[in-house]
Amino acid sequence: MVKPVLAVNFKAYYPHSFGENAYRLAKDAVRVWRETGVEVILAPPFTELKSVIEAVNGTGVKVFAQHADPVEPGAVTGFIPLEGLKNLGVHGVILNHSEHRLKISDINYLVKKARKLSIETLVCADTPETGAAVAVLGPDMVAVEPPELIGTGVSVSKAKPEVVTNSVDVIRRVNKDVAILTGAGITTGEDAYIAVKLGTIGVLVASGIVKAKDPYQVMKEMAEAMLKGLA
Amino acid sequence: MVKPVLAVNFKAYYPHSFGENAYRLAKDAVRVWRETGVEVILAPPFTELKSVIEAVNGTGVKVFAQHADPVEPGAVTGFIPLEGLKNLGVHGVILNHSEHRLKISDINYLVKKARKLSIETLVCADTPETGAAVAVLGPDMVAVEPPELIGTGVSVSKAKPEVVTNSVDVIRRVNKDVAILTGAGITTGEDAYIAVKLGTIGVLVASGIVKAKDPYQVMKEMAEAMLKGLA
Amino acid sequence: MVKPVLAVNFKAYYPHSFGENAYRLAKDAVRVWRETGVEVILAPPFTELKSVIEAVNGTGVKVFAQHADPVEPGAVTGFIPLEGLKNLGVHGVILNHSEHRLKISDINYLVKKARKLSIETLVCADTPETGAAVAVLGPDMVAVEPPELIGTGVSVSKAKPEVVTNSVDVIRRVNKDVAILTGAGITTGEDAYIAVKLGTIGVLVASGIVKAKDPYQVMKEMAEAMLKGLA
Amino acid sequence: MVKPVLAVNFKAYYPHSFGENAYRLAKDAVRVWRETGVEVILAPPFTELKSVIEAVNGTGVKVFAQHADPVEPGAVTGFIPLEGLKNLGVHGVILNHSEHRLKISDINYLVKKARKLSIETLVCADTPETGAAVAVLGPDMVAVEPPELIGTGVSVSKAKPEVVTNSVDVIRRVNKDVAILTGAGITTGEDAYIAVKLGTIGVLVASGIVKAKDPYQVMKEMAEAMLKGLA
Repeated sequence: MVKPVLAVNFKAYYPHSFGENAYRLAKDAVRVWRETGVEVILAPPFTELKSVIEAVNGTGVKVFAQHADPVEPGAVTGFIPLEGLKNLGVHGVILNHSEHRLKISDINYLVKKARKLSIETLVCADTPETGAAVAVLGPDMVAVEPPELIGTGVSVSKAKPEVVTNSVDVIRRVNKDVAILTGAGITTGEDAYIAVKLGTIGVLVASGIVKAKDPYQVMKEMAEAMLKGLA
Repeated sequence: MVKPVLAVNFKAYYPHSFGENAYRLAKDAVRVWRETGVEVILAPPFTELKSVIEAVNGTGVKVFAQHADPVEPGAVTGFIPLEGLKNLGVHGVILNHSEHRLKISDINYLVKKARKLSIETLVCADTPETGAAVAVLGPDMVAVEPPELIGTGVSVSKAKPEVVTNSVDVIRRVNKDVAILTGAGITTGEDAYIAVKLGTIGVLVASGIVKAKDPYQVMKEMAEAMLKGLA
Repeated sequence: MVKPVLAVNFKAYYPHSFGENAYRLAKDAVRVWRETGVEVILAPPFTELKSVIEAVNGTGVKVFAQHADPVEPGAVTGFIPLEGLKNLGVHGVILNHSEHRLKISDINYLVKKARKLSIETLVCADTPETGAAVAVLGPDMVAVEPPELIGTGVSVSKAKPEVVTNSVDVIRRVNKDVAILTGAGITTGEDAYIAVKLGTIGVLVASGIVKAKDPYQVMKEMAEAMLKGLA
Repeated sequence: MVKPVLAVNFKAYYPHSFGENAYRLAKDAVRVWRETGVEVILAPPFTELKSVIEAVNGTGVKVFAQHADPVEPGAVTGFIPLEGLKNLGVHGVILNHSEHRLKISDINYLVKKARKLSIETLVCADTPETGAAVAVLGPDMVAVEPPELIGTGVSVSKAKPEVVTNSVDVIRRVNKDVAILTGAGITTGEDAYIAVKLGTIGVLVASGIVKAKDPYQVMKEMAEAMLKGLA
């Protein structure tokens, strides 16, 4: 059976996404992974990658960078090449997030280079059409997130289910294999349940988990809801 | 019969692309259009659009902007919304040129908005894969130009014919209708002939025409070579 | 006596800033210039520069571009080098507008190059400190515009007069000669009157004039108020 | 007596700037600090900040980020607000490096915010004039680095000493207190000696140390040469 995916974008909430909070969130994620077996992905800020990687060490939880810069290693200042991420031990990278859009040629460059370095790629898109466009480039995962719902707590799976089903349709026409995630406004287990019922394999969540009173509870609820949805 | 396309990017060569030189180039293009009937597209700098539009007025030569900014009209300074281009009388717009790359979400926004405003779109790409990615968005034309050959005088049709045939393959898989152009290093009639023989409908040329001793002769030669190639 | 400056940024309001509207605004400006003798500067969109230059031809009204790109002429697509603006006949250029910020090294490059080409420079800044920073580079004019007031109709001269007086103070410490303009929310003659009373030489106005019911009346009123203020 | 400054920009050389190499470089720097007492600043990639901070813990060596993004903490993905850096324990931040230029308004925003957070700022500039422009904003340090010499091994102190002396002149006119560093091509102790003799307080070095066969030796030599120069 295919495992549902619970991807958590820490963003840069302060203090939630940094220091001890980031570490604690990672430990909560490990607990959810142990208890449910879903595929858990954590994307902390660059500066917290090291401590989060240490926190999940030896478990199945994966750590992704929130972004990578389309640069070769060398004389570049304040940018992060994929090689630096790989060396640190990250498993993957989010690309083209709504808050960090990339040029199409740079997405292509990064997806191809990540594949060579065995770094997984999760490429975001704002519409079904751009979701299909980036899917053509062969990333591991695509998440379609209508920007107007991001951070609202109004989930795309409830407010715009047609965006999700339409995304699955147009993406599958150009790429049979890419994993499709649902994102934007995902806050509850029910949102996650609908996401998998509509044909995607998981969710990309940020404030719904990171700023939750009890992130563990929300992650657990979402993981179980997705398992139920896929059963 | 389908007409071959001869698209001329004036870029910003000085003084070639400006003032009287731009006007004269436009008049040469009109002559080639009259004599050969090929689809001629001229893309002068923003500041020369008005005079080039006047120069080709009443003919079949089309004028494209070299770029459009992904902005709505309003409080924007030093940016050009599509509405401003339409109002001026342009027929189309080049998007995502190698020297002016765009974010994938912005290409999608501009292609869709241009369609509503009846502005044609010619989207550039650096590889067959990105060519297919942008083709998913439904532009009128796609040009695949390996950046390393742009401006070299070494044509992609001779140096990397597999880029052209591969582009046609992967683009056609996702879009049956888009017109496919060959670009990068196109300098001679032979380059243009090979481009159509390899399955594309025309060429996107810059310095090969704009900086030529006799732009009229080069355009004429390319137009005739493409007609021969398609015959 | 020093002449007050009335600088009009057309921005990209639609249809106000384009086509016949742009031309009519230019003709109104010529009338105000003839009737009052103030220094009038018009900054239309790139695509309207040619027609506005024609409209003010033979008068003392100056035409500025809203922006210039920090590029040398050559293989650049969709960007405007200063040489192209000069060739068209522009008198000056706005740089670093709140809606089109530039890197400090690019402002320096453009100010120096503009001087060589006899193109005047009007550099915008968001605070007195950044106003002083750009004044160090030796532009002809500096306009300090608090972004939060731009386009509000609440004028900086009334809402934050200390920004204006403070700007004059810190800019004069580093540059004795640069002309200092007041901008953001300037809508009435009174706003312009206060601006010169606070020690600046004129105003930078956009929607207050461009979207006014009768732009001529507003420009006339502002011009006369500034003359009164400087008398 | 004023202590000379030895600032080391790790850039993103691979594998030199990452992992064990970054850690070892930090340990070498600690040794030089102990042996010479000069002010040593290390600027590793974002992803190595944590381990370098741990490596220098309890010593006088300072750790700077190579860049900071002009964002508030919150819903930002793949960007680093100053609060995240502070929380990690960095002492300062490099801004506007030649390989990561910033808009003047963003430099102002970051310098002011860093001051509130007790984060030191080292702002780079490409010419004496832009050095003076950024000095107006009140950073702790300014480094003037002619981009054409960066990474060449040809030091600005030998090849263009007038850039250094001119920088000191024009920066001192607008800011009496800012520390002025010399950068670009600094490779030897002699380069560093000349830098302080020309009136600056230290050097900003990258490949000359990071890619050196024995970084410890080069740092030691530069530190001692500067001490001699200032004696």
